[in-house]
Amino acid sequence: MQGPRGDDACCTSVAPVFTVRVRDRGSRARAGTLHLAHGEVATPAFVPLATRGAVKTLEPRDVAGLGYEMVLGNTFHLMLAPGPELIAELGGLHEMMRWPAPIITDSGGFQVFSMGHGGVADEIKGRRGPQASADSSGSILAVEEQGVRFRSYLDGGERFLGPETSMAVQAALSSDIALVLDECTPFHVTRDYTARSMERTHRWLTRCLDWHEREGPAGQRVYGIVQGGIEPDLRAASTQEVAASRCDGIAIGGSLGQDKPQMRAVVDWTTAELERVAPSRPRHLLGIGEIDDLIEGVRRGIDTFDCAMPTRLGRHGMALVPDPGRRWRIDLHKPRFRRDREPIMAACRCPACAQGFSRAYLHYLLRARELTGLRLVTLHNLSFVARVMSDLRAAIERERFDEVAAQLHAGAAPGAATRSTS
Amino acid sequence: MQGPRGDDACCTSVAPVFTVRVRDRGSRARAGTLHLAHGEVATPAFVPLATRGAVKTLEPRDVAGLGYEMVLGNTFHLMLAPGPELIAELGGLHEMMRWPAPIITDSGGFQVFSMGHGGVADEIKGRRGPQASADSSGSILAVEEQGVRFRSYLDGGERFLGPETSMAVQAALSSDIALVLDECTPFHVTRDYTARSMERTHRWLTRCLDWHEREGPAGQRVYGIVQGGIEPDLRAASTQEVAASRCDGIAIGGSLGQDKPQMRAVVDWTTAELERVAPSRPRHLLGIGEIDDLIEGVRRGIDTFDCAMPTRLGRHGMALVPDPGRRWRIDLHKPRFRRDREPIMAACRCPACAQGFSRAYLHYLLRARELTGLRLVTLHNLSFVARVMSDLRAAIERERFDEVAAQLHAGAAPGAATRSTS
Repeated sequence: MQGPRGDDACCTSVAPVFTVRVRDRGSRARAGTLHLAHGEVATPAFVPLATRGAVKTLEPRDVAGLGYEMVLGNTFHLMLAPGPELIAELGGLHEMMRWPAPIITDSGGFQVFSMGHGGVADEIKGRRGPQASADSSGSILAVEEQGVRFRSYLDGGERFLGPETSMAVQAALSSDIALVLDECTPFHVTRDYTARSMERTHRWLTRCLDWHEREGPAGQRVYGIVQGGIEPDLRAASTQEVAASRCDGIAIGGSLGQDKPQMRAVVDWTTAELERVAPSRPRHLLGIGEIDDLIEGVRRGIDTFDCAMPTRLGRHGMALVPDPGRRWRIDLHKPRFRRDREPIMAACRCPACAQGFSRAYLHYLLRARELTGLRLVTLHNLSFVARVMSDLRAAIERERFDEVAAQLHAGAAPGAATRSTS
Repeated sequence: MQGPRGDDACCTSVAPVFTVRVRDRGSRARAGTLHLAHGEVATPAFVPLATRGAVKTLEPRDVAGLGYEMVLGNTFHLMLAPGPELIAELGGLHEMMRWPAPIITDSGGFQVFSMGHGGVADEIKGRRGPQASADSSGSILAVEEQGVRFRSYLDGGERFLGPETSMAVQAALSSDIALVLDECTPFHVTRDYTARSMERTHRWLTRCLDWHEREGPAGQRVYGIVQGGIEPDLRAASTQEVAASRCDGIAIGGSLGQDKPQMRAVVDWTTAELERVAPSRPRHLLGIGEIDDLIEGVRRGIDTFDCAMPTRLGRHGMALVPDPGRRWRIDLHKPRFRRDREPIMAACRCPACAQGFSRAYLHYLLRARELTGLRLVTLHNLSFVARVMSDLRAAIERERFDEVAAQLHAGAAPGAATRSTS
């Protein structure tokens, strides 16, 4: 953490968590480096999910081989199993999962509140109204000032997650970046609810930072979280409050509206304000990872992103392709791929395409539920996203951000910018 | 195939399918090389299953990286999906699955007869009496001289598999070694049934070889299959019949008895007879792969083995270890591994152990049903078996077979013989 009421000048007194190398002239896009306990991360960067301590279907060497320098571990799932005591006993999350590079851990709040608000993942993205979550057998018991009581989806036992608990679990995991606990405010609530929820998040922020100052592991950085829903004044107020805290970096959380324009507007207000009050602190956009959203997030000054999208799509047989008209994806289960001898994407350097696996073979493997198929499409998707981010970094460095962003939006194959360097 | 009524002398007129490099003095063990259309295979060798055109959880580069030179594709599953026409259109099985090295395909008979006899896998190994197979929703409709009619487990449609069909499908797959169709005689039948079944298998052998002579792909080798159950005279008769045919190699199939001593006796009679009538033709033992069975099979002159064991155990969280008292396996699901910081096996060079994944982490991943866990244990198991086979090959070459076999039986870590060469 930074010093008390840290502002950006504080960064000079300790090793800075973040350095901005190049700022784009025409936007808030910037290329920088995160300096973390387990190494550096070139930004802007996408952070793959290692939800339960493994990037699904992959080994750490696979993830590193695709160019990733950081993964995200999930505090909620890891606190339920194998549990913070055992992870600490095994040497922390890095040692347990044999990932030697930086790890960011979320606070667990998003998953806990998903059980209460019902499918908060879709809810926060505005895609539907409140309803019972289909895939959660846990349940929330009470949200109180102290924290949240809930039932474990694993054994039905009662559990508690408060600001201090979350920080203590993340301390046991020994992540490079811990996120403070926030109340994930859903989209379909009143402005008054959003405001009160935001204020609680701010009180929790202080408690998280207080706990971390006393008991947090040396070298672990803490990100605060901006809430405020889709209300410009609340987002501005939350941004100022979080920026005025001792946090090392700032994440944007909560409801980002009901469609992409609204989401981009929320990000826009927030990073505009951050540019004013905390220009040098790193910024993370929570849970966003579609290709156009990554490009537009970078344009608005986001440094890191995490999202289940590329890995989850991969396990559902959806492969990323440079085709904005199809949301950058094709469904390999579709009958039209049955005899398709082409790789997922022409001239793609991912392990699946470079080894020459055809769409027809992947179609067959996916229909036969062969795990090799899930792995190959996951490798392709994470490789695709890694190259988009690599292109955006290179574009900022060369003062060509707008041009490269436009090319990617128009369906240029990612990797072009990276190729022209080599 | 060899010339008509080929004997071993015929091998000199065409490129030999197999050369024996070293014969052990104290046993029938031998080290050799299979010369196949897609490359060479050092024997004795284990052949991992790529049942549906993929070694489950792995990519071809993983399998090759473990030292394997051949995999086995399953004619029954592949003829149902994606089907021989599509596989041929995609360039054959090698091209479809991107495995450039040799492939052996079975005939499909084992799976078809499994549906009829009910759980023939266990049945053939004598572990239980006839009963309905639990994991098959297909069914056999009729076994006739022409072949077998059955229902597809995929769509319920009626299908037919006869000697010519099996060879035609294997021709479409373009495997390096095709197996003739045999009737897989179960254990719990009369001697008379076994004898009649064996005679049908011999008639099917001739039909397979006739079809292959007319229409088989150039370069594809054909193995005949010895039947005869647990009757010494029937096994001897079948061995002579198969050896007298034009087949390039000889597989041992059917019921191998109800326990390991009986299985070894059946193999013993058969290879003793083969040593007399076909000393230079390669020998494959179908469906056998436990560690002690591999050692004892090699001693009796078996050149190649296939078995679901290492990959299937891996997906069930069972890891191979050098511990004969535990059938060379530990169940990583067991609570005793929850806090175990050791790798599966000390000083193991497999990708899972060499990267330092602990038993505790694997235990957790398996319980959380993370696909990464299934992959890691599969890699370990296939690496373990590859090293056992490598040790046995090296031992034969150095005239130390008996000594190395005894060490492995006693629980020596495999890889020792290989290590001392390097």
